[in-house]
Amino acid sequence: MRINDRHYRTIWLDGDGRSVSVIDQRRLPFEFVALELKTVTDAARAIQNMTVRGAGLIGATAGFGMYLAAVEAARLPPAKRLNFLTAAADELIQTRPTAINLAWAVRRQLDSLSKSMSSPSEQLVSAARTTAQTIADEDAEACRQIGLHGVGLIRAISEAKSGEQVNILTHCNAGWLAFVDYGSATAPIYQAFEEGIPVHVWVDETRPRNQGARLTAWELGQHGIPHTVIVDNVGGHLMQHRKVDLVITGTDRTTHTGDVANKIGTYLKALAAHDNGIPFYVALPSSTFDWEHADGVKDIPIEQRDAGEVRTLSGLLPDGKIAEIDILPPESPAANYAFDVTPARLVTGLITERGICRATAEGITELFPEKRA
Amino acid sequence: MRINDRHYRTIWLDGDGRSVSVIDQRRLPFEFVALELKTVTDAARAIQNMTVRGAGLIGATAGFGMYLAAVEAARLPPAKRLNFLTAAADELIQTRPTAINLAWAVRRQLDSLSKSMSSPSEQLVSAARTTAQTIADEDAEACRQIGLHGVGLIRAISEAKSGEQVNILTHCNAGWLAFVDYGSATAPIYQAFEEGIPVHVWVDETRPRNQGARLTAWELGQHGIPHTVIVDNVGGHLMQHRKVDLVITGTDRTTHTGDVANKIGTYLKALAAHDNGIPFYVALPSSTFDWEHADGVKDIPIEQRDAGEVRTLSGLLPDGKIAEIDILPPESPAANYAFDVTPARLVTGLITERGICRATAEGITELFPEKRA
Repeated sequence: MRINDRHYRTIWLDGDGRSVSVIDQRRLPFEFVALELKTVTDAARAIQNMTVRGAGLIGATAGFGMYLAAVEAARLPPAKRLNFLTAAADELIQTRPTAINLAWAVRRQLDSLSKSMSSPSEQLVSAARTTAQTIADEDAEACRQIGLHGVGLIRAISEAKSGEQVNILTHCNAGWLAFVDYGSATAPIYQAFEEGIPVHVWVDETRPRNQGARLTAWELGQHGIPHTVIVDNVGGHLMQHRKVDLVITGTDRTTHTGDVANKIGTYLKALAAHDNGIPFYVALPSSTFDWEHADGVKDIPIEQRDAGEVRTLSGLLPDGKIAEIDILPPESPAANYAFDVTPARLVTGLITERGICRATAEGITELFPEKRA
Repeated sequence: MRINDRHYRTIWLDGDGRSVSVIDQRRLPFEFVALELKTVTDAARAIQNMTVRGAGLIGATAGFGMYLAAVEAARLPPAKRLNFLTAAADELIQTRPTAINLAWAVRRQLDSLSKSMSSPSEQLVSAARTTAQTIADEDAEACRQIGLHGVGLIRAISEAKSGEQVNILTHCNAGWLAFVDYGSATAPIYQAFEEGIPVHVWVDETRPRNQGARLTAWELGQHGIPHTVIVDNVGGHLMQHRKVDLVITGTDRTTHTGDVANKIGTYLKALAAHDNGIPFYVALPSSTFDWEHADGVKDIPIEQRDAGEVRTLSGLLPDGKIAEIDILPPESPAANYAFDVTPARLVTGLITERGICRATAEGITELFPEKRA
């Protein structure tokens, strides 16, 4: 997608094939800086400290992380490679417990690499590079397809409103910064914009890390899409007053029964949409489905992150310098739950690369019949 | 209530009777500073810029503001006093459209003063002083009574949990900082603490102005009440996992039919409480009832404040200095709706100075039969 009118992806293999570059999302929207990852530990750290984040991008970074691990493993005697790669896989998987694309990408690499363990070094490296690129390309293509399927929802609302602006609310960043390109929740919005349908996006700030205010607002702004930042408390009021036509969010993991784990606060917006009869859609590539667990609220592990993310916030001082300030009374403890689970009953539908389906086991396996138990 | 182990109210008449002092709540929790109000314009500005805020304290400040206006009016010829006082009343009322205690206190002063318009100056001033003090004293006493009635809810949960800690979630600051003393939502909590019932409070940060994180956390901390600050997105997740036993919030205006206008985001917590079968109570002195309007969502005006409150945030730099930072992309617009309305159907009950009632026209007029139409 476009940044300062240049085309970018969120992650790319550098020309020499020795390192991987990512956009440092911790510094957006104030600074646009790329960061090089040279080892699997660099990749794990980038996921852990949220240099990169978002369902698809975590998966793609894990895929490239395993590529960097394969480069290191290729220097070892064949008998020691599997141990090294398994340890690398563990290091990556432990960084974020809720995101399912992470484990999915790592396992895909391990499965493929386990076949090349005694191949010549170049072959091991080349296999890992191919898988990493494929994961990234598939992610971008799935998001493009999500856009093509999802735009129909926006077009239908626009027609029902006789061409008046369609107001879409989104939470957190499920934009192209969360994937390799296009985004999940934003893909239908970008597609609508391409097609000339007038859209306006209500961007939930998304405390504590403000991915909505910092990332979604920024990427929509780069594309010239009309948007307004609101604090997370506002969505219910807007829905009561019919100022929202449609909610689209992303997800970090969705069970095959339709329960949606996503950024903390998503559940509250789903409740408000349901209470006001406003359609609530979740966009996801199929790599984000959890085909094992059926009860999202009970079974999906919810990451608790450092309370420092609640306690401090960074931004620009009047002199343009970036600073971090403390916003709580020093003696008050804070807790930082990073995700919540929206029960399937509150989800109008899922927008996937294969089309839109109901958020039920039946609806999902109709689109993905190969997953039928 | 206690600050650094000294007893305070949030507003008081200075010894010379010539000025009124308030705690500057914009500087909490980082600095504890009192601010003198010498004119009605000072009082209006303090309400407008949120030096003081909160249902009861806005009312009390308006009462004292009219006292300061009376001091000025008393210097004018009797024929010019009413015009001056009416203009002062308008100036005060226009500061915050949603808060009903404001108009209630101003009208109470005007009604009383209109009888003393041609009295000697000292009598006019003394009547205004008495009314202002009465409004403040009644507010404190109503909150004390709310505590005595509300503590029963907490005690019952504590007994049902065999003495285990009772977890109460609150939104914004309906603490003693929002009133003259005790608070509304916090009064039952302080009372429970006095009685030795183990309580823990989940404090919603309450963006954009963070009255939860800055004020509620600070005042609970001053009292030694266990509490944890969470971002506004978290409450739904906690309720799904039974980590909240009871929600108590305040209100800026509640219709006589039980619709509750309160800080933006309250509606979302009420939806989550309802979805999870958790009791959701609203605490209010009867001065906060709106006896005219019946449909809260349709009829209560919702204040929109400056987008700067969403765009910037203040806190402490590492060197201990207070600084304000910009947290949005500079080109992204923001909107700032300050309140929302929780429909009566989501409210378990109202805790008033006369007892607890259902959030219905019948329930409310049973407690306040003198208001029966």
